[in-house]
Amino acid sequence: MLKFVVVCHRRPDWSRSEFRRYCREIHGPLAEAIPGVRGYVQNFVRPEEGRDPAWDAVVEFWFDDRETMEAAWRSEAGRRATDDNAHCMDLARTAWAVVEEVVVRAPAP
Amino acid sequence: MLKFVVVCHRRPDWSRSEFRRYCREIHGPLAEAIPGVRGYVQNFVRPEEGRDPAWDAVVEFWFDDRETMEAAWRSEAGRRATDDNAHCMDLARTAWAVVEEVVVRAPAP
Repeated sequence: MLKFVVVCHRRPDWSRSEFRRYCREIHGPLAEAIPGVRGYVQNFVRPEEGRDPAWDAVVEFWFDDRETMEAAWRSEAGRRATDDNAHCMDLARTAWAVVEEVVVRAPAP
Repeated sequence: MLKFVVVCHRRPDWSRSEFRRYCREIHGPLAEAIPGVRGYVQNFVRPEEGRDPAWDAVVEFWFDDRETMEAAWRSEAGRRATDDNAHCMDLARTAWAVVEEVVVRAPAP
């Protein structure tokens, strides 16, 4: 499995809650529709818990392999979701990467 | 379950591979030893895959709840792991937060 992580910064004229609502209701379904997405998890900062970092969310994608991921981004649904990034994120600060996932202890279900 | 995410930046005089080796061999075991850690996952940037963001890793922790997490950080093992952050990370740029985890699609095992 290949894992892809995005550290997201919201567009500057939105609040954290506007960004979260948009990601859950609009952007998330666009991303979920991309073919070949084997896993998709959104992690939204909860500033009420006492920490308020510069980023707003960390998003995780899983694909079978590099080839499947490339095909996913090239697909119509992939392009639609990618185009939508510019609507909800600050793309100058948002950054993504393929990562090596080391599961030291798997979270209990 | 409570989830805690750290977007890590390595200390400036280390390479990505030095940082990764240290996290896997030294810092990871310190974090794993903290009581109450229900899940612990390290995600290291793979720049050879074509993306080279400013951050070096995203680390995920799971705890039963806020109280368990606070007790974890206060424990001897928690303090030891926290103290070690200063040895391997750029703490001016590394930032952590409690997050709301939205599992849109659970990754297939």
